[in-house]
Amino acid sequence: MSTTPRVETITLGDELLLGIRENDHLTYLGVELAHHGVEPAANLVVRDNPADIRSFFADSWKRSDLIITTGGLGPTTDDLTREAIADALGETLVYDPEIEQSIRERFEQLGKEMPEINLRQCNRFQNSTVLSNPYGTAPGLFLEKDGKLLVMLPGPAREMHPMFQNQVIPRLQQAGIFPEIDCYLQLRTAGLGESALAALVEPLLKDVPALVVGYCARAGMVDLRLSSLDSEVLDNQGLQNLADQCRETIGEDFVCFGDLTLAEVIFRELRTLNQTLAVAESCTGGLVSSSFTEIAGISKVFHGGAVCYHNDAKVQLLEVPEVMLEQHGAVSEEVAIAMATGACEKFGSDYGLSVTGFAGPTGGTQVLPVGSIYLGYASPLGVWAKKISLRGDRASNRRRAATAALDWMRRKLRKYKLDEVFAAADAGNIDL
Amino acid sequence: MSTTPRVETITLGDELLLGIRENDHLTYLGVELAHHGVEPAANLVVRDNPADIRSFFADSWKRSDLIITTGGLGPTTDDLTREAIADALGETLVYDPEIEQSIRERFEQLGKEMPEINLRQCNRFQNSTVLSNPYGTAPGLFLEKDGKLLVMLPGPAREMHPMFQNQVIPRLQQAGIFPEIDCYLQLRTAGLGESALAALVEPLLKDVPALVVGYCARAGMVDLRLSSLDSEVLDNQGLQNLADQCRETIGEDFVCFGDLTLAEVIFRELRTLNQTLAVAESCTGGLVSSSFTEIAGISKVFHGGAVCYHNDAKVQLLEVPEVMLEQHGAVSEEVAIAMATGACEKFGSDYGLSVTGFAGPTGGTQVLPVGSIYLGYASPLGVWAKKISLRGDRASNRRRAATAALDWMRRKLRKYKLDEVFAAADAGNIDL
Repeated sequence: MSTTPRVETITLGDELLLGIRENDHLTYLGVELAHHGVEPAANLVVRDNPADIRSFFADSWKRSDLIITTGGLGPTTDDLTREAIADALGETLVYDPEIEQSIRERFEQLGKEMPEINLRQCNRFQNSTVLSNPYGTAPGLFLEKDGKLLVMLPGPAREMHPMFQNQVIPRLQQAGIFPEIDCYLQLRTAGLGESALAALVEPLLKDVPALVVGYCARAGMVDLRLSSLDSEVLDNQGLQNLADQCRETIGEDFVCFGDLTLAEVIFRELRTLNQTLAVAESCTGGLVSSSFTEIAGISKVFHGGAVCYHNDAKVQLLEVPEVMLEQHGAVSEEVAIAMATGACEKFGSDYGLSVTGFAGPTGGTQVLPVGSIYLGYASPLGVWAKKISLRGDRASNRRRAATAALDWMRRKLRKYKLDEVFAAADAGNIDL
Repeated sequence: MSTTPRVETITLGDELLLGIRENDHLTYLGVELAHHGVEPAANLVVRDNPADIRSFFADSWKRSDLIITTGGLGPTTDDLTREAIADALGETLVYDPEIEQSIRERFEQLGKEMPEINLRQCNRFQNSTVLSNPYGTAPGLFLEKDGKLLVMLPGPAREMHPMFQNQVIPRLQQAGIFPEIDCYLQLRTAGLGESALAALVEPLLKDVPALVVGYCARAGMVDLRLSSLDSEVLDNQGLQNLADQCRETIGEDFVCFGDLTLAEVIFRELRTLNQTLAVAESCTGGLVSSSFTEIAGISKVFHGGAVCYHNDAKVQLLEVPEVMLEQHGAVSEEVAIAMATGACEKFGSDYGLSVTGFAGPTGGTQVLPVGSIYLGYASPLGVWAKKISLRGDRASNRRRAATAALDWMRRKLRKYKLDEVFAAADAGNIDL
């Protein structure tokens, strides 16, 4: 495809329009398309009504080079997408015995018999390719027609995501919608906007043959993707060399290669060091602990967390001295550090991370208005505190304070881990 | 308006299509429209491109009785919505000195001077009404044309939500898109599906004159809204009588009048009782504590939480006996209760709530597969444990376990609070 292809996505389902379920597929497909250098032109959320589906689809088909639909492929009668789109395309639905075979096998695996109603899912467009669904009954469909492409995917994310990754991306590369990437590498950054990151790395990346550069911003982080169109010109090692130069230029704001969360980065650093962590939270009230405990296998590193919202709990559980709370207040450098060291002692961990602050809407002072947050950090190498000032509402301040704590710890950990390694090397304990 | 009006929403912004920001406005407007008995037909997410905005808008205008747009009303040049839609409608944009006045006043309040660029926001359609924006610079617009309605709202939620509540709903009622409600009452339920709830209450509600019944499902709860079209026929007291009958029929699954979260319901019950709470979490790792600490003023009730992910922490912090962990395992009735009572003791609270379980993907046993969760509850009236079995992935199991714990506590609290009150009355301590 020579010019930029126009892509539209259609996410089907009444529950999206009624606010019962969030339109996560829009986000997922947006990030995936952006990663491959394609910016979707529009997303249509259409209710389960055949006339609407037909009409929206027909208009979109006229405008677009590629349409991706999600949902509406189930066996029940309110899943009418196949029929409505066949109608709009002037395609005939044909029964495909291979689909029936694979659905029957899936039911057998579950020890059940296939209900008659699932026969509806065995129809496909005459000229389409079936995308197999190892995680559910609804197969996907892939159709090339009139120089355009249609991809139809099932609604459940656990079925849709692997189908997109394994069966759709290669086909879109072959069709020239996505650049046909031989290999790629991703860097994650935190603390830089997309344009600031671009300004930093573009001098290193411009005029490199066979290189495609992509950016993707999400949840306070910006990903940089370096892809090679031809591994004979730019191979994995070449990409890695470029990435290493970018990493050096980006400095502290470099988070990781790949797409780890901030908590996962900390988890890996601590595992490598064979060190453990505990958390003490006041205003974030469990959000930092929750970021760690969402990682499977975290118990090797994460000893636990104390949500000490009430001052009494700070005294009782974390042994923050009462006189310190009186003198400096609960939102202070001193208390942040005492909470972090208290967490280390109570949970018997090597490292401690704490957050205390005024999330709002009330509770601030003239010197420390709502949004004033102190972070505390305790490590075998020393203790630190840091003040941040936020300007959102309670929910946003809590979320941002948690992210700031994680990002700060990952920076500290990397910086002082290296020092530690150097110190150990100087002392002759390890070879560098 | 005699027939059901067709409503479409258009949410503008590249960042939605690229997956940088979630399309929360779709959810917000979906819930609001459903509450007023209107099911939107479609939502279009359109990038900041004048040709696309014009063409999508023109098509939607042909189909719809009401269009609501969000976003694209800012002062910068990539905010082109006003111009593109004026073009599609054949409307002229006119400069409105009153808009300039109010924007200048807003900047003055902030101690700043209005930049020239904001003059772009002072244009409105010739025949439109301006919706004032007390929380930002971009005014909204309301237009009646060709028997159709257009509502244009700013993108930031803190500006859009109050504008919708205070200025749009009354206008849509007046225009007959929303039924003109004299008064309404909302009941929140948990544990019932929408159709099960309808089957329970419909016999009480059918044939009641001037009554409109609406349902709205979200995040495991279903809201029932009872509205009166005419307060001379059905007044607030009449609604309350109906709601009380519904409440009685719904029984334990009734959560509250209004739209409190489960944690807020528990907060209020405990405040009324002048009692306090602590939480101990293993697999949910901070999610339950976080649900409480998102409530402003919670420190009056919530003493704190312990995230005891590691068994050592259960022993050290909560004083769960080591021998109990060995004999029964960390995921057991005994440990759940010991965690709840341990939290009470450590944080000096009257009530304790705990969660321990296998969230996955690994860690289950043959008897207790992944998804097996024990909840523990300690109260002045006794201790309880409950087992639940979930079948999702790690993230979904964690989320559902946290919700289940909160819903269970609210049920227990309400049930045994009443008993407590009756017992106190029997003992002659209070008058009923």
